[in-house]
Order: sequence, then C-alpha cells, then structure tokens
Amino acid sequence: MRLAVIGVGLIGGSFALALKQAKKASHVVGVGRSTQNLELARSRGIIDSIATSAAAGARGADLVLVAAPVAQFAAIFSELKETDALITDGGSTKRDVVAAARLALGKRIAQFVPAHPVAGAEKSGAAAASAELFRNRRVVLTPLSENPARAVDQVQALWEACGARITRLAPDEHDAVLAAVSHLPHVLAYALVHDIARRKNAEQLFSYAAGGFRDFTRIASSHPEMWRDICVANRDRILDELERYQAKLGEMEKLLRAADGDALEKLFAEARDARDRWLKSST
Amino acid sequence: MRLAVIGVGLIGGSFALALKQAKKASHVVGVGRSTQNLELARSRGIIDSIATSAAAGARGADLVLVAAPVAQFAAIFSELKETDALITDGGSTKRDVVAAARLALGKRIAQFVPAHPVAGAEKSGAAAASAELFRNRRVVLTPLSENPARAVDQVQALWEACGARITRLAPDEHDAVLAAVSHLPHVLAYALVHDIARRKNAEQLFSYAAGGFRDFTRIASSHPEMWRDICVANRDRILDELERYQAKLGEMEKLLRAADGDALEKLFAEARDARDRWLKSST
Repeated sequence: MRLAVIGVGLIGGSFALALKQAKKASHVVGVGRSTQNLELARSRGIIDSIATSAAAGARGADLVLVAAPVAQFAAIFSELKETDALITDGGSTKRDVVAAARLALGKRIAQFVPAHPVAGAEKSGAAAASAELFRNRRVVLTPLSENPARAVDQVQALWEACGARITRLAPDEHDAVLAAVSHLPHVLAYALVHDIARRKNAEQLFSYAAGGFRDFTRIASSHPEMWRDICVANRDRILDELERYQAKLGEMEKLLRAADGDALEKLFAEARDARDRWLKSST
Repeated sequence: MRLAVIGVGLIGGSFALALKQAKKASHVVGVGRSTQNLELARSRGIIDSIATSAAAGARGADLVLVAAPVAQFAAIFSELKETDALITDGGSTKRDVVAAARLALGKRIAQFVPAHPVAGAEKSGAAAASAELFRNRRVVLTPLSENPARAVDQVQALWEACGARITRLAPDEHDAVLAAVSHLPHVLAYALVHDIARRKNAEQLFSYAAGGFRDFTRIASSHPEMWRDICVANRDRILDELERYQAKLGEMEKLLRAADGDALEKLFAEARDARDRWLKSST
C-alpha cells in the first residue's frame, strides 16, 4: 500500500509510522511546506520520499492523508481531483473540511472519508510523531452520504490498525461536541496566559505559578496556526460555547460576591465528582 | 523537636514526613476532625500520637503547623493562645489568616510566622502525603512586623529542611499574586466541568474529552472545602481577576466574531511563547 501524507506533522507523521509498524503501508510519500521538516521526517523513517505538491504526491497512491492546518484543505483538495486513491484526513473541524472537499473534489467526494483523531498534543512537527500516538485514542469518522460502505470500512480499518478506537458522528455534531470539550478550553487557556503575559508584573506572577497552572495552561503551548484555523472554521460553535461559559462565570461571580461558601462548595464538589467519574469510566 | 500538626492532610502530613526525614522532628502529634484520617496518618508513620484538640496538641510542642482549610483558622488560633511554641501554617490565603491570628493570639502573634507552600495537588488527606512534596517547590513566607528575625529564620530553616525554595511577600501582595495564577484558574476549571456536567448530553461530551481537557481540568478535582474557604477568604482579589479575565474573553469573542485569523494567531503565538519561556526559566 502506497500512502501519501500531505502535512507530515504530529498527526500525519504518526499515522505514517503507525501504518508502517502495522505493515499496512510499504511506501510513504510526504508533502509539506517546510523542507527542513520533510528532511527530518525522511531521516526518522517516517516517509520514504518527498513530493513537491499534493497532486504529485497523490499520483499512484492508494491512500492520501490530508493532515495540514484546516485552512489549507481547499487548496489541497483542488490538487486531488484526479486521484483514484481513497482519501482521509486529520482535521480537527469537520463541517468546513467536508464543504471544501465537496467543492473541490466533485464526484470524487465519494472517495473521501473524513476523520478526526482526537489525539492532539502541545508538541508539533515530524519531530513529535510517534507510532503510538493513536493507541487507545478516539478517532471520529464523519462519513458522507456519497461514501460507499466499503470505503468507510477500509478507512476505519486503517485507523484501527493505528490502535485507535473509532466512533462515528455527523460533521455538525462533531463540531458542536469538540467546541465544548476541546476548542473552548484551548481558547480559555490561551486567554489566561496572554492576559498574564501582558502585565507589568508578568515575571513575578509567572514565578509563583505552580503545577496547577502548568497543567491548566498546557494546551496554550499548542500550534498557533492550527488553532487559528480551528477557531475561524468553527467559530459559530465556539462562540456558542463561549457565551455559555461567560454565563457560568457570571454565576460564579455572584456566588463570590455573596461569599456564598455553601453554594461554592456544592458546585466544586459536583464538578470534582463529575470529573472523577469521567476519569474512572475513561480508563 | 516536638511538632504538632493541626490538620494532617496533604500539606500537614507531608510537612511532618519531610521534617522526620530531615531529622528535625522527633515526635509528631496530630490533631484533626477525622479519626479515620488520623489513624491512617499514624499507621503510615506520619504522626506518633493523636491529640483531641489543638490546645492539647500544642501542649509541650516546639512547633505548631496549622494546615486546615482556612475558615477553621480562627477557632484553631483561639486554642493556641497559651502555647510557647513557634507557629507556622500552610494556608493558601494570607490576609485572612493573619487577621484571624492577630485577633486570637494577642501578644503571641510574634510567635506566628505565616507560610504558604505553593505545592498543592488534586489529591488530599494523609493518604496523599509525601516527604518529597515540597522538594524544589516554592514556599512563600509573609513575616509580620511583630516577628523577631530569629523566629522568621527558624521557620524558614524548617521549610528549607523540607526541600522548599523560600521567598517573602507581604500578605496583601501574596493574595493578589495567588489570585491570578492559582485561585482564578481553579475557579475557571471548576466552572467548565460543572457547566458540562449539568448538560443533557454530558456523558457524550465527556466521552470525547481527551488529554487536553484532562490536564486543563485537573485542578477541578481539588478539595471542595479547601477551595470554598480560599474563594471566600480571597474573594475581592479573585473577583478582580475574574473581571480582568471576562474582559479578555470579550476580546476573544470579538476576534472570533470577526473571524480575525491574523489577530488570533498572533495572540496564540504570544501566549505560547510566554508559556514556553516560563517553563524554561522555571526548570
């Protein structure tokens, strides 16, 4: 199986490594904007050859993975309209990706089975890729009405070969769910760090930040371009979540202003219990 | 050296273990509300004996550590007004603790050197105590004008014997700094988890939460009573921080609404760079 990876970063590189380890890919061709990153990917054995465009990379491929920041998908799909390969992706938003694919691929949309591996990290680039990244992580497929069942099954089998647990959602539902549990938290973490970094006494404040702050803000070390694209693509859903969250902070503000210790403790205990139940059920 | 620990939880238990390991404490007496927790502390070798009140525990002690949730400090200090021991504490807020001590201790306020070990964890109780908890962690002393220099030095030496790095702040400055980098993040994390937990589709949402969400919300598994007390005690500073943060979220909302990718990316990159610089400087 010949695999083309468009965007050999954390997700693309890990997909290539995992499929090689599972003996599902015999040759991987990489495409990307950074020659340095592609050379690193080749030296790490992630890819076997480099192509200078998505169109060239897809030529002769059996499978194409599109794993660039999502704002680039329209241009990439427009280069894939001649390919006979199966196509999947690693985009963190799905409505915009599906719309771009429909526009660019025409009839070949049937070959595109959208996927979102929910396995990000604050590290990026081929240097961070690992064959184990998707092990026991969730990959969401958002199959299209045009996809033959066999294409969906094939793509599912490949992500499963990477060790992933598969679920299926409609693109719209995917974007709403991820806005709540992934996109909003990233916006919140970026906002907190940015606000502190801009203050006159930023250095003093950071010097008293401890482990709680470090973990709370870990996702604020994520890839700025990738998160720019996610925020722009999914902004309506993220704005819905931000509005809900601001209302929640309004509630917290009232409880603090009233020094309502009982209500605060009840809220904190409910949150802790919900989180602990989630952790227990997810392991 | 005979040590009395009032509140043998994560902080109190770890202090006892660390001082025993450093051969600075020969006998530790524990006081607390939960007999079960005290028995566990004794079976783990954290304490050597149990007293039924702070007054009884402090009798004959050379050092008393008050490490209960801060709302209990007033009652505890009122039991310490006969003691000749040096007193320190582990409270996460300092203005309220100092005010309670002044009121209860009278002239003996000179014996009380306030401290805040910035070394929390989402685990609590004697079960979570560790002799290593304070190693290379920051402990903030907020000495009082009444403290003889020798008392401050003695308390500092004991926290240093636990492996801590000491800095000194005024109580007011301490509470402002910690509101920004610790108290507000806790409120934000509790708010997010609580909002999601209350929704009809909470189970679905949690099922798509991944590592980023887990770390962002780790502090929402913290001790609800302890955080209730911190929030009530330091609510004016936390409300200042919450107001700033809400203004920041208002900025983010505008950028999202305008789909201003350039400004979002710039903000994300500045936050990431600031965080990465902090991580580098703090290790």
